[in-house]
Amino acid sequence: MDKLSLQDPVFATYVIAATLMILKAVSMSWLTVVRMMQEKGGFRSPEDLRRTALNPAPDPKQLERNERVDRIRRIHLNDLENIPFFLAAGFLYVLTGPPLLHAQLLLYGYVVSRLLHFAAYLSARTHDTRATLWTVGSLIVVFMTCRTLLAALGH
Amino acid sequence: MDKLSLQDPVFATYVIAATLMILKAVSMSWLTVVRMMQEKGGFRSPEDLRRTALNPAPDPKQLERNERVDRIRRIHLNDLENIPFFLAAGFLYVLTGPPLLHAQLLLYGYVVSRLLHFAAYLSARTHDTRATLWTVGSLIVVFMTCRTLLAALGH
Amino acid sequence: MDKLSLQDPVFATYVIAATLMILKAVSMSWLTVVRMMQEKGGFRSPEDLRRTALNPAPDPKQLERNERVDRIRRIHLNDLENIPFFLAAGFLYVLTGPPLLHAQLLLYGYVVSRLLHFAAYLSARTHDTRATLWTVGSLIVVFMTCRTLLAALGH
Repeated sequence: MDKLSLQDPVFATYVIAATLMILKAVSMSWLTVVRMMQEKGGFRSPEDLRRTALNPAPDPKQLERNERVDRIRRIHLNDLENIPFFLAAGFLYVLTGPPLLHAQLLLYGYVVSRLLHFAAYLSARTHDTRATLWTVGSLIVVFMTCRTLLAALGH
Repeated sequence: MDKLSLQDPVFATYVIAATLMILKAVSMSWLTVVRMMQEKGGFRSPEDLRRTALNPAPDPKQLERNERVDRIRRIHLNDLENIPFFLAAGFLYVLTGPPLLHAQLLLYGYVVSRLLHFAAYLSARTHDTRATLWTVGSLIVVFMTCRTLLAALGH
Repeated sequence: MDKLSLQDPVFATYVIAATLMILKAVSMSWLTVVRMMQEKGGFRSPEDLRRTALNPAPDPKQLERNERVDRIRRIHLNDLENIPFFLAAGFLYVLTGPPLLHAQLLLYGYVVSRLLHFAAYLSARTHDTRATLWTVGSLIVVFMTCRTLLAALGH
């Protein structure tokens, strides 16, 4: 059977988890834009101080670090450190033919852990809460990657 | 038919767009190197102040922020925020079996939008120009991802 | 024959190289955690100064830049600039059906170059050593990507 068919429930599980995580990561760009517009600051490029339709009253302070914008940039960077590797690890893992229940627990578990991590980071919960949620997702990626590596070495 | 064959024009379209975007992102590393050599600065690591064949006259100022190098680093970071998700979203999208014309418009449209975004960022055009070009690419990724998610949920 | 089967030695080579590189990149997150705990600093978020089980004696200096933590962050960023594109380029390259020996030299060569790059960066070897090792990996990605692009254009 075609492993990359959406009729295969394991692959469909991957596609749902992967697309949700892509939308999550891309949303961070949009959230950065929203916050920069709310704060009228947190910009990074000298040319962003030119008077334009989107910035009618430029001010050199707009290039200073803005914590509300920077928080989203930190969350975004955390996504870049994690989600691309989840996308690759999950894809290779489902190619090893895991049981559907394992795939669902790992892939949807990852999605839930990252959404909770986002909520904890956005609302500035203590480091320990954020770190615990990050750890769950990271261990899922490590587990899927090791299982896949062992499967490849076993052939 | 094999979905991952270059004889499938939809998959070949993806491969052409994906490889062009990989080359684009990797080129930012090389462009950073070129600018660091031109500027003899914009370095980041303390050990880069040691006298070597590539840096015969070290100076502590070489570790200071250099706007010409930093511009490429900002463009590069923007690529990291966008291109890996395009690569994944485009791959899953072509697996859903879209019409060739849709795939060409979306995938090649993305490539063109990112190359124009690069030109606008490199030449320091106003924020509004750069933002418009970024938006086109981001909406293409969001569209492909949502179409793929809906296709996966429909099975 | 199924191109995405672990019984295909070319694809198995890719899976081994890809999973090793995913583990390498994810390890940088864990190494950052280890160093932040060793240094009790190098944090980034204001809320990390709250008293918690993991940070019983908070101090504003913990938010200052810490070179030992920052070194791992620089290595990590370098991974983000390289490994996702290796994962995608390598995958598309093996789909073009290269000879096993070529795939092994390129994919395992990349893994070795990145591990040596990591060792050189971690131990603060001169820029020239680090740059040479980075160059090997980058050229492998460029080569695989160009071969794949030419194969796609040839159809």
